[in-house]
Amino acid sequence: MDAQFHSAGIAALFEPATELAHMLAFEAALARAQGELGLIPAAAAAIIADTCEDSGSPLRLDPETVRRAGNPAIPFVSMLTDRIRSVDADAAAWVHYGATSQDLIDTATMLALRETFAIVRHDLHQLRESMATLVRTHARTPMLARTLLQQAMPTTLGYKLAAALAGLDQVAARMTEISTTHFALQLGGPVGTLAAAGAQASELVRDVAARLGLAPAAICWHTNRVRIAECGAVLATLTGQLAKIARDVVLEMQSEVAELAEGHASGKGGSSAMPHKHNPVDSVVAIAAATVTPQLAAGLFAAMTQEHERGAGGWHAEWLLLPQLCSLSHGALQSVLEIMLGLRVDAERMRANLDSTLGLTSASALANALAPALGRDVAHSTVQAWSRSALSERRNLREIAERNLATFEKNPLTQAQLADAFSIEREVAAAEARALQYLQQRSPAT
Amino acid sequence: MDAQFHSAGIAALFEPATELAHMLAFEAALARAQGELGLIPAAAAAIIADTCEDSGSPLRLDPETVRRAGNPAIPFVSMLTDRIRSVDADAAAWVHYGATSQDLIDTATMLALRETFAIVRHDLHQLRESMATLVRTHARTPMLARTLLQQAMPTTLGYKLAAALAGLDQVAARMTEISTTHFALQLGGPVGTLAAAGAQASELVRDVAARLGLAPAAICWHTNRVRIAECGAVLATLTGQLAKIARDVVLEMQSEVAELAEGHASGKGGSSAMPHKHNPVDSVVAIAAATVTPQLAAGLFAAMTQEHERGAGGWHAEWLLLPQLCSLSHGALQSVLEIMLGLRVDAERMRANLDSTLGLTSASALANALAPALGRDVAHSTVQAWSRSALSERRNLREIAERNLATFEKNPLTQAQLADAFSIEREVAAAEARALQYLQQRSPAT
Amino acid sequence: MDAQFHSAGIAALFEPATELAHMLAFEAALARAQGELGLIPAAAAAIIADTCEDSGSPLRLDPETVRRAGNPAIPFVSMLTDRIRSVDADAAAWVHYGATSQDLIDTATMLALRETFAIVRHDLHQLRESMATLVRTHARTPMLARTLLQQAMPTTLGYKLAAALAGLDQVAARMTEISTTHFALQLGGPVGTLAAAGAQASELVRDVAARLGLAPAAICWHTNRVRIAECGAVLATLTGQLAKIARDVVLEMQSEVAELAEGHASGKGGSSAMPHKHNPVDSVVAIAAATVTPQLAAGLFAAMTQEHERGAGGWHAEWLLLPQLCSLSHGALQSVLEIMLGLRVDAERMRANLDSTLGLTSASALANALAPALGRDVAHSTVQAWSRSALSERRNLREIAERNLATFEKNPLTQAQLADAFSIEREVAAAEARALQYLQQRSPAT
Amino acid sequence: MDAQFHSAGIAALFEPATELAHMLAFEAALARAQGELGLIPAAAAAIIADTCEDSGSPLRLDPETVRRAGNPAIPFVSMLTDRIRSVDADAAAWVHYGATSQDLIDTATMLALRETFAIVRHDLHQLRESMATLVRTHARTPMLARTLLQQAMPTTLGYKLAAALAGLDQVAARMTEISTTHFALQLGGPVGTLAAAGAQASELVRDVAARLGLAPAAICWHTNRVRIAECGAVLATLTGQLAKIARDVVLEMQSEVAELAEGHASGKGGSSAMPHKHNPVDSVVAIAAATVTPQLAAGLFAAMTQEHERGAGGWHAEWLLLPQLCSLSHGALQSVLEIMLGLRVDAERMRANLDSTLGLTSASALANALAPALGRDVAHSTVQAWSRSALSERRNLREIAERNLATFEKNPLTQAQLADAFSIEREVAAAEARALQYLQQRSPAT
Repeated sequence: MDAQFHSAGIAALFEPATELAHMLAFEAALARAQGELGLIPAAAAAIIADTCEDSGSPLRLDPETVRRAGNPAIPFVSMLTDRIRSVDADAAAWVHYGATSQDLIDTATMLALRETFAIVRHDLHQLRESMATLVRTHARTPMLARTLLQQAMPTTLGYKLAAALAGLDQVAARMTEISTTHFALQLGGPVGTLAAAGAQASELVRDVAARLGLAPAAICWHTNRVRIAECGAVLATLTGQLAKIARDVVLEMQSEVAELAEGHASGKGGSSAMPHKHNPVDSVVAIAAATVTPQLAAGLFAAMTQEHERGAGGWHAEWLLLPQLCSLSHGALQSVLEIMLGLRVDAERMRANLDSTLGLTSASALANALAPALGRDVAHSTVQAWSRSALSERRNLREIAERNLATFEKNPLTQAQLADAFSIEREVAAAEARALQYLQQRSPAT
Repeated sequence: MDAQFHSAGIAALFEPATELAHMLAFEAALARAQGELGLIPAAAAAIIADTCEDSGSPLRLDPETVRRAGNPAIPFVSMLTDRIRSVDADAAAWVHYGATSQDLIDTATMLALRETFAIVRHDLHQLRESMATLVRTHARTPMLARTLLQQAMPTTLGYKLAAALAGLDQVAARMTEISTTHFALQLGGPVGTLAAAGAQASELVRDVAARLGLAPAAICWHTNRVRIAECGAVLATLTGQLAKIARDVVLEMQSEVAELAEGHASGKGGSSAMPHKHNPVDSVVAIAAATVTPQLAAGLFAAMTQEHERGAGGWHAEWLLLPQLCSLSHGALQSVLEIMLGLRVDAERMRANLDSTLGLTSASALANALAPALGRDVAHSTVQAWSRSALSERRNLREIAERNLATFEKNPLTQAQLADAFSIEREVAAAEARALQYLQQRSPAT
Repeated sequence: MDAQFHSAGIAALFEPATELAHMLAFEAALARAQGELGLIPAAAAAIIADTCEDSGSPLRLDPETVRRAGNPAIPFVSMLTDRIRSVDADAAAWVHYGATSQDLIDTATMLALRETFAIVRHDLHQLRESMATLVRTHARTPMLARTLLQQAMPTTLGYKLAAALAGLDQVAARMTEISTTHFALQLGGPVGTLAAAGAQASELVRDVAARLGLAPAAICWHTNRVRIAECGAVLATLTGQLAKIARDVVLEMQSEVAELAEGHASGKGGSSAMPHKHNPVDSVVAIAAATVTPQLAAGLFAAMTQEHERGAGGWHAEWLLLPQLCSLSHGALQSVLEIMLGLRVDAERMRANLDSTLGLTSASALANALAPALGRDVAHSTVQAWSRSALSERRNLREIAERNLATFEKNPLTQAQLADAFSIEREVAAAEARALQYLQQRSPAT
Repeated sequence: MDAQFHSAGIAALFEPATELAHMLAFEAALARAQGELGLIPAAAAAIIADTCEDSGSPLRLDPETVRRAGNPAIPFVSMLTDRIRSVDADAAAWVHYGATSQDLIDTATMLALRETFAIVRHDLHQLRESMATLVRTHARTPMLARTLLQQAMPTTLGYKLAAALAGLDQVAARMTEISTTHFALQLGGPVGTLAAAGAQASELVRDVAARLGLAPAAICWHTNRVRIAECGAVLATLTGQLAKIARDVVLEMQSEVAELAEGHASGKGGSSAMPHKHNPVDSVVAIAAATVTPQLAAGLFAAMTQEHERGAGGWHAEWLLLPQLCSLSHGALQSVLEIMLGLRVDAERMRANLDSTLGLTSASALANALAPALGRDVAHSTVQAWSRSALSERRNLREIAERNLATFEKNPLTQAQLADAFSIEREVAAAEARALQYLQQRSPAT
């Protein structure tokens, strides 16, 4: 029932088959590097690496064996050793030499994370570009801004989208940073000191890391999980910002607002009982994901307290948390991308909603205009009283203002000033300018 | 990689095949009840129900169709209607009559939860009984109690287990309560009012609920998710208490403590790099689960804020949270049950650890014995100073005490009183008594 | 900045002054009970208890001393002992006899929780009664139901409120249950076995508990935190349900919907920049609280994993979590109570919104009416097509339906059937009936 | 009761008095910049700014007024306007001109966060340097490494600390990055477009930001909360890593291990009931904090879903979460700093623990030594069997190995190889080398 929220592509990166492929890549790189450095016999290194890289008959782990062993690395190493022994008994002695289960599992996780980030960054780039295009197109499309869900003042759709895009740009910059620094080889041996490599430990780490396209960690990170926590944090942040956008779409799609809508597609968003409805199904995906991802990130923070040189439970909790954090974040991203690619904008309705506000969205401008003459807070309370009259009489605030200003001994506003206060041009122009300035300043390349 | 932490049996209850079976059961019960109440034609009711109950060729939902629809109910109803139309075109008009997607999905969830709770309660009962047996067996097996992970005073293994068992007993009582009241039919139609049933709404709810073995909700609970939150809470509480037990086992299994151990089984808990190790693999499962379950329960609390008559995201988040909360809780339970069934108790080591404390665990008793003469806090600070001497000189506190008491003008303790303070009999007897009293008072039947 | 969200009354229950009072009450009760059972001299017991109960010159703990001790109990006991020594040196030896810091702190927490629950239950009762009154008043006030924030079908305000009330009723029942069983004395001495009381341990627990109005725990619960977790869970559940109600109010207060509003009060909910706005300030309190309370409850679940006989960190985390969970929950409750007491209902606007739906909310009824003739899914897709025409042409669905039905060879609907499909009477009657039935069935007394 | 966990210094940064000071700084900077750009009269600008900067008679907000207004900005602006009116009525009209409540509150939060990060970074630097010193001192101090809390193989204290230090270094680098980019002025006016500043909006933002020492945001971030979420994430990550260190200290302080201890100080870590105990009170502070901070960070992620141009609840939840996240993180940092500054290292006990392992920690080296002759997995299972014999006979593994090797047809190990396998020198040298290499590579300056 939950499959519709996950990214199938990302989920696959953490499934047994891919994990096995990543573990084989680790053993191959380790053997080749050890062979080159003379830590193990060159012949054994070649046999191990060739066997690992031979995609002919894939390994398969039995779930019950994994459960009894407590992790997949132990049965994997044993199975791989058997296979290599069947090729060359001497080589079998050098499989996984000097390494430990956690080296294998953490490195496999890093390889999966690296691919996850590559995919997410790619799609995030697409989403950001599609939003930038919408910002440009709608830089001057007037609509209501709403604060605490109350109609506030005019803005433009372009500005609204630019403000949301800025958050995605910040997340993208952080993901780029993480991608260049955080995906590091884990290689420390049983207790992290890589004792089996002796003086060549650093060289071995650099060599294996280079073969796998990972960063060489300056020191083994078996129970320093800052990397993992930071990856979790950026994914939760991304999903939060996606859900902010999605929630706005849901609110805009309300029958009473009806300014934006997700694209129609056959079979999409219908209701089983109410045939006229068009449900915000893509937005719902992002919002549901963002209800869960903060919790998964919290789990990763909580799991950091790992004991001594290998945690009893905290490390294992990561296996439960990280894969779904990745696949839910990407699921949310795909949904919001689909929304933006198919976004239906009803500019007429936006304008109609603006016009239906009885001029109340100009109340702030009116109060500002009156402030020099009346003082800021008298102006504010005066306009507040007029606004109440407008609401109760269902008359436009401008009409109420004119009626009342006529009773002033000295009218503090010229007709031009009054017209200016009730024009939305200033707000629209400001919104357009800020939106376009943002597009110029941002770094789309990230 | 995470499969080893989940209960496969529980996970299956939330998988598409079981969900479809539950949805068919709902439609069958609905049709039969509506037929009996005359809300739909009796012939149509029979055809619908018979078709639903015919297990011949199971329905299969296409994941992409589900994703587009936003939930599995819409394509399910459409597929079921097609099938019934192929039997009888008239009957097809009455499928799912008056009901809505959420009725179907929530009821299916309730059926899965009911089965989950039945399984969990069964295994929890077994665990509690196995612990009660251990309490009885070890009511007088002396061991160290530890506070803030410091050796404190003597207790018994029976008492330690009885105190932990009490928490499980409380959770079991709560689960029984929930099982008898919380698993309720969802049946409200599009907006909850069950308008299609007219004056027979209550009767229809009672009838359908009875057919499914669920409670009839007093009013539709589409966006009142208290039931769901309370189920989540009790599972998180259970897992927390299981992890408390598991963490104690991990601490007891430390090489330096070595008082308890998980049972040995071939291939279990070995280390890939360190052949002598015996890892606490079952305990780790419960601890990892309990790192995640608080977060999943928090997600359910957060998801309660569902809008109007059907939530946009909050409801859907439940589908992501509840199944894994169920399967992780049961996974943790199975692990702790396995621990208790195979628990290895090293009573000798417990006794040796007790004897190695330099008499410091009697410090409290010694201070209490001195209190009447010296006053409580002088007694306390005196014994604290003696304890420091014991530690620095590596001599038994009793020896230090005797040496110092000899310098008192008037020795405040008789030899018998001193012996009594350093005897562990009083503590052991108290621990035994409290443990056995608890066994007598508890309600094992829950 | 956060004070406005907390209940000052509840916060005070966890502040040092109240905590000291609760600790004094514990020591008084302990001394009196021990005196009566002959565990300590009767004279000492009387002096200790009298001193504790003498409210003349309150004790004051120095925060830095508390920090160094690691908890407030240690300096408290030392300060109390000093005071009693100044009265009677012999009595001082018997202060806190056989007890431990955690007994003192946990019991003080239980006393604060008991008062918290009493206050919360009282105000929750008021809220539920105010909602029950609104249900009765508005049982037949028609309004739109909305699913996934889309206009769905007619309901009544009374029904909407009854459905939300049901959740509060469930929470209230659970709070009653907890109040009668969960607030238990903690009394176990250093390691839980209450060894100092020997054979009189059970009797002592019963006696002290009775004096404090707490339940006697069947066994000491130093590291069994099920009680605490369950209290946290029910408060998070309560706040979740309150936020569900508050979010609906926020949505109803949207300028475009404007069906409900928080009461106006001077200075309330104004905007600094936009004088016409009426912000949902009370609703915001409940929603903000409910963003935090799930996390606090999760913290309590996570804190359950307490080591051996006294946790190193988990127990202490409760002190950070529980007080704010209590004061935020009650703050949210007070806000929703204020909303309900001042709720402004615009029945005219509700009706106008209903009428503005182009008849689309009758689409489901129309499809049901057509189903017998066309089959359920043809009827559904037909009405879906007509609904799209209604939306694009901005014409009423009934008009579209009539136009199209006229083209049928044989019109499947009589005029009466058509009128019935477009009448909201059936829905209103159903909503009214369900709401009033709920009021009859519920147990207001809880 | 919770004060001992919070940093009083940080807590003060979020208290009303500091918040008022920050709000005054905002209004002063805004007025000066607006005066300079000609957006408001120069005379008014000077009067406003001078009044704000006059520390003579501080403003005081009434909590009840704040509660009714929904935030502190509204009464603050009103009070400030009154004060300025009393100086100059004309100037009063220009107070807070073009700005909105959220500009004021978010900017005040940024100023508090900037100071928080400065303090935390300072103390974190101190902690890191104290740990680097310990790494150097103990680079060759042998001790047991432990995996899953089981004795594993030799390492050194210096290595253990270096591995933990690496995590703190990563967090410090991230904090530096955030400090240079994330603390940004909030200035957008009612709906973010800063319409009142017209074409000078960007210039105004740059000018005000420069005056406050904040970054100028490229676009207003009223409902883009990525900044806040990222600050929360790094603090939770920091606390997680601190708790990792603290938990290791707690485990090392166990009576049975006793290798490390928190420094003794009078009145510190004593037990009320057990005078001999030395409780890990500083470690407990960090662990308790880290039980809560993941949840607070999750709350911030969840709060990101803020509606339209100002959130109803999500924004407000930040006020509840961020201050305590800051003060708990710093409280944890202070505690771990205190631990490191006073750390008591019992190198003798470390050595004794190493020697008590029956040679089992050399099992891995022995298996590696046997691997070329027996094959890796036969070597592994052989050594596993010998290890079991060692444990059951309580004899050293070397003795068992020699006994068994004597029965081999051809002894696969020379005496030198055997001695080498049981020497800890290789492990100690490796640990030392890795630790010192890390110190060379790291960037302490961050």
